[in-house]
Amino acid sequence: MTTEQRSTLDAILRQGAFPADIGLEEQRAQLKALLSAQPLPADLTVTAGEIGGVPTAEVTVDGIEPRHTVLYFHGGVYVMGDAALSADLASQIGRRTEASAISVDYRLAPEHPYPAAVDDALAAYRGLLERGIAPADIVLAGESAGGGLVIATMVNARDHGIPLPAAAYVMSPYVDLTLAGATMKTKRDADPLMSPDALQARIPDYTAGQDPALGLISPIFADLSGLPPLVIQAGSHEVLLDDAVRLAREAAAADVEVTLDITPGVPHVFQAYHAILDEGATALDRAGRLLSAYLIYPGRSAT
Amino acid sequence: MTTEQRSTLDAILRQGAFPADIGLEEQRAQLKALLSAQPLPADLTVTAGEIGGVPTAEVTVDGIEPRHTVLYFHGGVYVMGDAALSADLASQIGRRTEASAISVDYRLAPEHPYPAAVDDALAAYRGLLERGIAPADIVLAGESAGGGLVIATMVNARDHGIPLPAAAYVMSPYVDLTLAGATMKTKRDADPLMSPDALQARIPDYTAGQDPALGLISPIFADLSGLPPLVIQAGSHEVLLDDAVRLAREAAAADVEVTLDITPGVPHVFQAYHAILDEGATALDRAGRLLSAYLIYPGRSAT
Repeated sequence: MTTEQRSTLDAILRQGAFPADIGLEEQRAQLKALLSAQPLPADLTVTAGEIGGVPTAEVTVDGIEPRHTVLYFHGGVYVMGDAALSADLASQIGRRTEASAISVDYRLAPEHPYPAAVDDALAAYRGLLERGIAPADIVLAGESAGGGLVIATMVNARDHGIPLPAAAYVMSPYVDLTLAGATMKTKRDADPLMSPDALQARIPDYTAGQDPALGLISPIFADLSGLPPLVIQAGSHEVLLDDAVRLAREAAAADVEVTLDITPGVPHVFQAYHAILDEGATALDRAGRLLSAYLIYPGRSAT
Repeated sequence: MTTEQRSTLDAILRQGAFPADIGLEEQRAQLKALLSAQPLPADLTVTAGEIGGVPTAEVTVDGIEPRHTVLYFHGGVYVMGDAALSADLASQIGRRTEASAISVDYRLAPEHPYPAAVDDALAAYRGLLERGIAPADIVLAGESAGGGLVIATMVNARDHGIPLPAAAYVMSPYVDLTLAGATMKTKRDADPLMSPDALQARIPDYTAGQDPALGLISPIFADLSGLPPLVIQAGSHEVLLDDAVRLAREAAAADVEVTLDITPGVPHVFQAYHAILDEGATALDRAGRLLSAYLIYPGRSAT
């Protein structure tokens, strides 16, 4: 049954895969079409907002009284996607953690290269704290480039002396823009969506002449010590698998609490397809249980 | 509070650490003293048994009606430890999975070098199946070298056409007897118990002239495809941290379902100290929840 689901999803994604040789506007339209193909749940309300001077999509679910906050960063290799397109995925985390979800519309390259996204992400997190929300009641979460932004934002906040959130949850994080992961090659055929060529084509838009190995661009190279517990998920059918594994390795080496959770046979950000893929829903369930424990017992991992 | 627990445990283990320059009999006595220092729970019964021609310690807990079976492999770098010494740890997994626990007394080196342990482990697993216990009702579990034996046994069973268990749980697995992990150096000071020198001193006892990179000696180098879901735990204060991380990486690359769960600031097989270390008990709880899902829904991860 889930074998059939996986095959169906694989075929859909291969049709919608992002070739390296099409223009950015076409890629943006394709991503929007892909993510808009699944209707939003009827109980979801998405409201345009602003936090710390950064535009947001605030996501609420009818009948849920939130106790916590998920600050969410969408994916799209820093050049596409938007806060509202990831509203459902953000809300799926909120549903499992008794949290409201705020999805951040950080500025995109090439119009706004690095460090615009990093600056906006930190401003949004700082804005949340300034609203009086306790760090222990906040989870940072994100998918793909948004996962990289989650890690970079925590490194950045730590270095600015800003208190860190209770935990972070990253799905298929894109944390190495030098594309040095072994799975860039070994998973190239298995990955129905991403390729090193397509990734490489968009990296200069974001780095704009900066070194892609900078810690706030590729947080796998940053000092990760002092970060809160990380929940890292990825599928085994993605060229970014090694980004997830190496992020876990570096965080563990830096004495960070880490859960790396790999689902076989599924693609990049498979959780986005939770409505048609059992593995997506169960991965969100596992993440929700871990995050709830960190939120409910914020002192558990205090060192 | 857990900071104090961690410091206390660290100090205890540093006193009992295994220097590279003492004899095997003294090491065996020290390990026995260390593991015997914690009294067995009063509700535990350990009975000498035999399965597939291999001696075992069968562990039952008063008042629990087991539905599943944990086949357990103790640690001790293939030259020390025994089934009964790990009875409590084996039973802690059983308590969390509604399972009885059978701890295996595989033969030890140097008296019985490789492949004696691997042969005994496979014989015990095969014996369990011959008792009529369904593979879907079995979890293989082990600590340290026993974790390596768990992985080797599944590789071996797969290659012999024997059906595999529902899942496996390895604590601080020792899966690379070439000692190539980066944490052999980077965690040397942080690790209160193990060192590359002490590990190296005992490797020839087990390999007895065979290549330590053989897949059934160091299963990190084996083909891991087709293995059931793996739950891998380790502490960040151990030279074997990279064994756990690299096992996760290799398994994920081979399309195996993997959870890698790293607890910061704790030593090798910290779960053994669950009675005095909160992190030990909560790690066992997390493993128990994951394993229970694999046992209750054995078809979940079918490919």
